[in-house]
Amino acid sequence: MDLNADLGEGFGIWRLGDDDALLGLVTSANVACGFHGGDPSTMRRVCEVAARHGVAVGAQVGYRDLAGFGRRRIAYDFAELRDEVTYQLGALDAFCRIFRTRVRYLKPHGALYHAAATDESQAAAVVAAICGYDPELPVLCMPGSVLAQLAVGAGLPVVAEAFADRGYLPNGSLVPRGTPGAVINDPEEVAARVVRMATERTVVAVDGTVIPCAMESICVHGDTPGAVSATELVRAALIDAGVPLAPFA
Amino acid sequence: MDLNADLGEGFGIWRLGDDDALLGLVTSANVACGFHGGDPSTMRRVCEVAARHGVAVGAQVGYRDLAGFGRRRIAYDFAELRDEVTYQLGALDAFCRIFRTRVRYLKPHGALYHAAATDESQAAAVVAAICGYDPELPVLCMPGSVLAQLAVGAGLPVVAEAFADRGYLPNGSLVPRGTPGAVINDPEEVAARVVRMATERTVVAVDGTVIPCAMESICVHGDTPGAVSATELVRAALIDAGVPLAPFA
Amino acid sequence: MDLNADLGEGFGIWRLGDDDALLGLVTSANVACGFHGGDPSTMRRVCEVAARHGVAVGAQVGYRDLAGFGRRRIAYDFAELRDEVTYQLGALDAFCRIFRTRVRYLKPHGALYHAAATDESQAAAVVAAICGYDPELPVLCMPGSVLAQLAVGAGLPVVAEAFADRGYLPNGSLVPRGTPGAVINDPEEVAARVVRMATERTVVAVDGTVIPCAMESICVHGDTPGAVSATELVRAALIDAGVPLAPFA
Amino acid sequence: MDLNADLGEGFGIWRLGDDDALLGLVTSANVACGFHGGDPSTMRRVCEVAARHGVAVGAQVGYRDLAGFGRRRIAYDFAELRDEVTYQLGALDAFCRIFRTRVRYLKPHGALYHAAATDESQAAAVVAAICGYDPELPVLCMPGSVLAQLAVGAGLPVVAEAFADRGYLPNGSLVPRGTPGAVINDPEEVAARVVRMATERTVVAVDGTVIPCAMESICVHGDTPGAVSATELVRAALIDAGVPLAPFA
Repeated sequence: MDLNADLGEGFGIWRLGDDDALLGLVTSANVACGFHGGDPSTMRRVCEVAARHGVAVGAQVGYRDLAGFGRRRIAYDFAELRDEVTYQLGALDAFCRIFRTRVRYLKPHGALYHAAATDESQAAAVVAAICGYDPELPVLCMPGSVLAQLAVGAGLPVVAEAFADRGYLPNGSLVPRGTPGAVINDPEEVAARVVRMATERTVVAVDGTVIPCAMESICVHGDTPGAVSATELVRAALIDAGVPLAPFA
Repeated sequence: MDLNADLGEGFGIWRLGDDDALLGLVTSANVACGFHGGDPSTMRRVCEVAARHGVAVGAQVGYRDLAGFGRRRIAYDFAELRDEVTYQLGALDAFCRIFRTRVRYLKPHGALYHAAATDESQAAAVVAAICGYDPELPVLCMPGSVLAQLAVGAGLPVVAEAFADRGYLPNGSLVPRGTPGAVINDPEEVAARVVRMATERTVVAVDGTVIPCAMESICVHGDTPGAVSATELVRAALIDAGVPLAPFA
Repeated sequence: MDLNADLGEGFGIWRLGDDDALLGLVTSANVACGFHGGDPSTMRRVCEVAARHGVAVGAQVGYRDLAGFGRRRIAYDFAELRDEVTYQLGALDAFCRIFRTRVRYLKPHGALYHAAATDESQAAAVVAAICGYDPELPVLCMPGSVLAQLAVGAGLPVVAEAFADRGYLPNGSLVPRGTPGAVINDPEEVAARVVRMATERTVVAVDGTVIPCAMESICVHGDTPGAVSATELVRAALIDAGVPLAPFA
Repeated sequence: MDLNADLGEGFGIWRLGDDDALLGLVTSANVACGFHGGDPSTMRRVCEVAARHGVAVGAQVGYRDLAGFGRRRIAYDFAELRDEVTYQLGALDAFCRIFRTRVRYLKPHGALYHAAATDESQAAAVVAAICGYDPELPVLCMPGSVLAQLAVGAGLPVVAEAFADRGYLPNGSLVPRGTPGAVINDPEEVAARVVRMATERTVVAVDGTVIPCAMESICVHGDTPGAVSATELVRAALIDAGVPLAPFA
């Protein structure tokens, strides 16, 4: 099983999360590329440590919005978004190249993640950027999203992810934030859910029903307080359950 | 002989120079990479048209200073500058890749050009970025500069350039701006100087002496009023003189 | 009658429109405040020339989006937008103060103009910023917009504007861009429409009907080719028709 | 005696220091204005809490360099720097105005602080900005610096500061960073030095001699780990010594 987390999200003097600790725990690092977070020296540092640990590096591409950390929806034109995604992909790949590796996948960040899940134009822009850059580069995204559909249509590898600490509705979609059950706060419960996901490919939905959870990667949070210890719990629980950990890519 | 010019220096709604016209005239395009000028869609457009015309694309890397267009000296740390140059190189290369080509050289812009000519740390940062990214990538710079020396020492190909419209001192350095003779304004005179440079590898210095001018590329300005017609004159004069035009790279 | 135009929209080395020429023609200058366009030295320069010509300075506030020139809708939180508008207002007022004048009104720019016309949260953020800064500062906006309604409710002065070169539907709203009749391109026709607006407070809608056009300011474009000559025509036509020109503020 | 600290230095999602805790301890808050750190909502929040606690707000103006946190020397033109300082001053003042107060002083940040201490052009730009905006606004700076001299010459109030945790040379200047004795790390010793500064206007230099320390404000650090507890110690020591704490402004 693959564990992915957002890393390299500091900017200049400002830090966010404990990159070095998490790089010892996850198997895939979604590395911010400088538009919503991340800066060149942070990108280089994360790529270096990831290469040393055998962690796969993915491009955590986002909107050009440092002030909003890429969390505000922006009404991009197709071409502008395609080109900004291309730019970010190339910039991150330059750092991977230094450490004899490459960007191994792409995962949109924040508002772009959500927009690409439902908006045809934004999803198509992400797909076009990947196809232009490297048509064998996988997209890590929500199963069933518009991005997943368009990526499949374009012949791109699509990797589905599940969320370690988010509640699910019986139809397999996430419980909306702000709704009871949206977030699982108990680290022990999170670890138990992840083991179930990895061993049974199921999850207990918010109404108690057990639903299928087809995925190849599980997303854990890297930038919340307690992220490191929660991820240690998840990792230990998977190892205890005999689930081998390795990058999907 | 190679003619290089700064291109792709617009940003967002703002334009600077006539990229499309110049791409029909020069043989090497120094393309701005988004830190001091240039934006992803402009970069893509220039790379596309350059590929169509057989114009070589070089990375016009600069300081992170849109407001100052990269013309203000900034006291970068070695590592910060190295990593920002790496980032810009990778970003531009992504657009070249779309059009089945690659970044073929690097030329620093503005204050970085001048800093790297004299400052060991900044020159070393540029060299380290190139060596990490692609140790066969040539640097286009002033002959005799600190950047040229460090690049040679690092085993990088170094390509010397001369300036079509700048006056030279008898020792081969440029007449400082603001001094009489610093800039040649008459387009006919500029064209005649370029022909002499290309055919005899000499230039008439500001004191009338004829001095050697060893170079493999001639820089023409892309962003001044009259840049297009001046470059047409230079190009026509070279062709009339039987000098073949082709990228050095 | 008041003529307003967007001015001071350059950034750094990049220029947009001919500020000096337009400041001799209009009576109110919507000055960009640095978030979507404009920079401190440009702001100072426009405020200086405006003060000399008796042109009223208004704050052309916009989204933090230089790359998109403030033309892309951004899903701001109420408080973030309120605070960014406050910041821009204060920054521009500092330059007015140097020339013994003050910001005399506020007009949102681009995507914020459109969002504030229909979106309660964004309109309320603009209103809250003005009320906090100076509750006597007028808002220049579309009559009937959500912004106009909330501003009236908050006790702010509201000044309605009409557009010199835009077509109107019979219900008084603008013909959407991309639809036949959206933009009037003939400068003579534009001038004639402006005279009718100013003298009769009517406009001929796209279907030929004459509709009322209640407004206190007419917006002319400052950043299109031909903007200066078109504005000269409008100004001359108003003077010929005996309409005195003066800032509304 | 006045205690000043740098506050409001977060940007967007990224935090730096504990603004709320420090606003209960210091008497003057140097508030970052958005160019090197700080964002509009942070500025508003700090101004609100400062007004509630009777803490004076000063403009912590800096270079336009978020990526370098204003710590890299930039070779600004006089006019550009003057105008960027003006812009920042006005922006911060807008938030003060909301809470019925005003910017009470200006203190340059980081590389601008150091540049203005020795560089005539940069110091003159800061002075010109203040004179244009409010010729009664004090400058908080190093005694004897070029900025202090030019400010005095321009008729501005100048307020000298001393540093709680920095070592002094016998001539009254700071022990350069990286040299033994540059920084006092023991909080008890820092507190004792501050009491001596405040009660005797002296400091023990790095060679053991007691030298005069004329100043009206003492700078404590706000953004280091332990900043809050160290400032609590300093404050308690001053109160124990019977030194009343109040803003200089």
